[in-house]
Amino acid sequence: MLYIIGLGLADERDVSVKGLEIIRKASRVYLEAYTAVLLVNQQQLEAYYGRPVIIADREMVESHSDSILASADTHDIAFLVVGDPFSATTHTDLALRCRQHDPPIPTRTLPNASILTAVGATGLSLYTFGQTVSMVFFTESWRPASFYDRVGENAGLGLHTLVLLDIKVKEPDLEAMARGRVVYEAPRFMSVAQCAGQMLEVEAERGQGVCGRERLAVGVARLGSEDERIVAGTLEELAGADLGPPLHSLVLCGKKMHEMEWEYVREFAVDREKFDRVWKAEYKGQG
Amino acid sequence: MLYIIGLGLADERDVSVKGLEIIRKASRVYLEAYTAVLLVNQQQLEAYYGRPVIIADREMVESHSDSILASADTHDIAFLVVGDPFSATTHTDLALRCRQHDPPIPTRTLPNASILTAVGATGLSLYTFGQTVSMVFFTESWRPASFYDRVGENAGLGLHTLVLLDIKVKEPDLEAMARGRVVYEAPRFMSVAQCAGQMLEVEAERGQGVCGRERLAVGVARLGSEDERIVAGTLEELAGADLGPPLHSLVLCGKKMHEMEWEYVREFAVDREKFDRVWKAEYKGQG
Repeated sequence: MLYIIGLGLADERDVSVKGLEIIRKASRVYLEAYTAVLLVNQQQLEAYYGRPVIIADREMVESHSDSILASADTHDIAFLVVGDPFSATTHTDLALRCRQHDPPIPTRTLPNASILTAVGATGLSLYTFGQTVSMVFFTESWRPASFYDRVGENAGLGLHTLVLLDIKVKEPDLEAMARGRVVYEAPRFMSVAQCAGQMLEVEAERGQGVCGRERLAVGVARLGSEDERIVAGTLEELAGADLGPPLHSLVLCGKKMHEMEWEYVREFAVDREKFDRVWKAEYKGQG
Repeated sequence: MLYIIGLGLADERDVSVKGLEIIRKASRVYLEAYTAVLLVNQQQLEAYYGRPVIIADREMVESHSDSILASADTHDIAFLVVGDPFSATTHTDLALRCRQHDPPIPTRTLPNASILTAVGATGLSLYTFGQTVSMVFFTESWRPASFYDRVGENAGLGLHTLVLLDIKVKEPDLEAMARGRVVYEAPRFMSVAQCAGQMLEVEAERGQGVCGRERLAVGVARLGSEDERIVAGTLEELAGADLGPPLHSLVLCGKKMHEMEWEYVREFAVDREKFDRVWKAEYKGQG
């Protein structure tokens, strides 16, 4: 059996009791470590589980999944995913491969907390979110702006948008590769400020008012941990906010933001007076 | 401290390790038991926690929260929520009351799996869901159809819609009340078939093609448990499907349904040949 187990968001004790029991008895334990990261390291996990943990990078999962699935028809294998397994397509990939395996490998998934619902900590109603978008690190030559259309679609319905921020873990260093060496860049995690900055850049180019400077947004960092941080403000304010260490995410508020959501989220405002002024002028009563 | 702790979806061992430790040490333990239910009963929870569990019905939470918050400034109180605390507005209500308490009561929330992300078990991408809607039991005189407009908005963007189904727990029996007695009706949980039937009724009245008989949908039951059940088909097929005991939810598929989502979800089809035919004619390539 392949168990795909969500670890939750913060540390080694966010796994479910059921998940922990399975991990401690599994023949092998893998940790998917390229779409998200926990706030604890591999050694802390291994000490807590009492088991060695094999780090599964993108290459292993996407190109060498046979090593992960080896003997899964007769042994229990645990594949750990930070957050919730269903919140990344990795799960569907692996589960499809298990189905197509000869003989098919039975799978079982243990859900857990996800950033998709943990953003409820902002006070914004999860029922009023539209489609989720991703923001990648822009480069000189690569500035994908498809997020802008999708955020615009959500905004057209008054819905909030959760923006998931790029992380770069174990990315090959292309310059070194060109010289024949395999070297990986240092990990990078996009911050709320970087995301807000890129949104303002694209708004300046597209000019449809989807994510202008005075749009209200909420930045979140390290949700689910004791050290979590939530900061609300205009996109311009968030472009200058420092929420500390990763992981960060950003929510662009939709105009359907209800009085009760506002009452809750304003407590996190960089500048409460300004937040209230913008909300009353642009959002209140639009729902 | 008031701890608002998500229990996850299925049984007593879906709580996080961290949550369980808090519950076992808390001065009092409440269970919110009117917006969702676990698949185990109060006695099983109490035996597992080694603690008495106080059932918090809607009246207690909404009108008598003082009893829940009593001494929370000096003692640890655990308030348990099935699924994820943020996925219901109860959390925001209670947390706001704690803020406004004199002196303010510190709160901490422990997220967990939610139906909002557990529907990823269908293979549908969580990033392609629009706003979430609720479906209530229709009566002769009360047939709220506001869901139709919101499903229509999602469908207009090609997005999936998660429909959360009504549950009636400890509802007063109005006839008995009129005779001066306080009697509660037996609990009722809406099924996928009932939901699909009501959607078809409203479609027949509104006629905009939002949720007609040939729209693809996926019904889910008891997600996260070993006994979970997923059934895909047209809305007409789902109106005749029996997914067994509660809790049920339904997803109406959006036209952006990707080839990979289709490949996964068709395994659950009532009639795979028909499912494929409708997908190819109406959905494929619309994303």
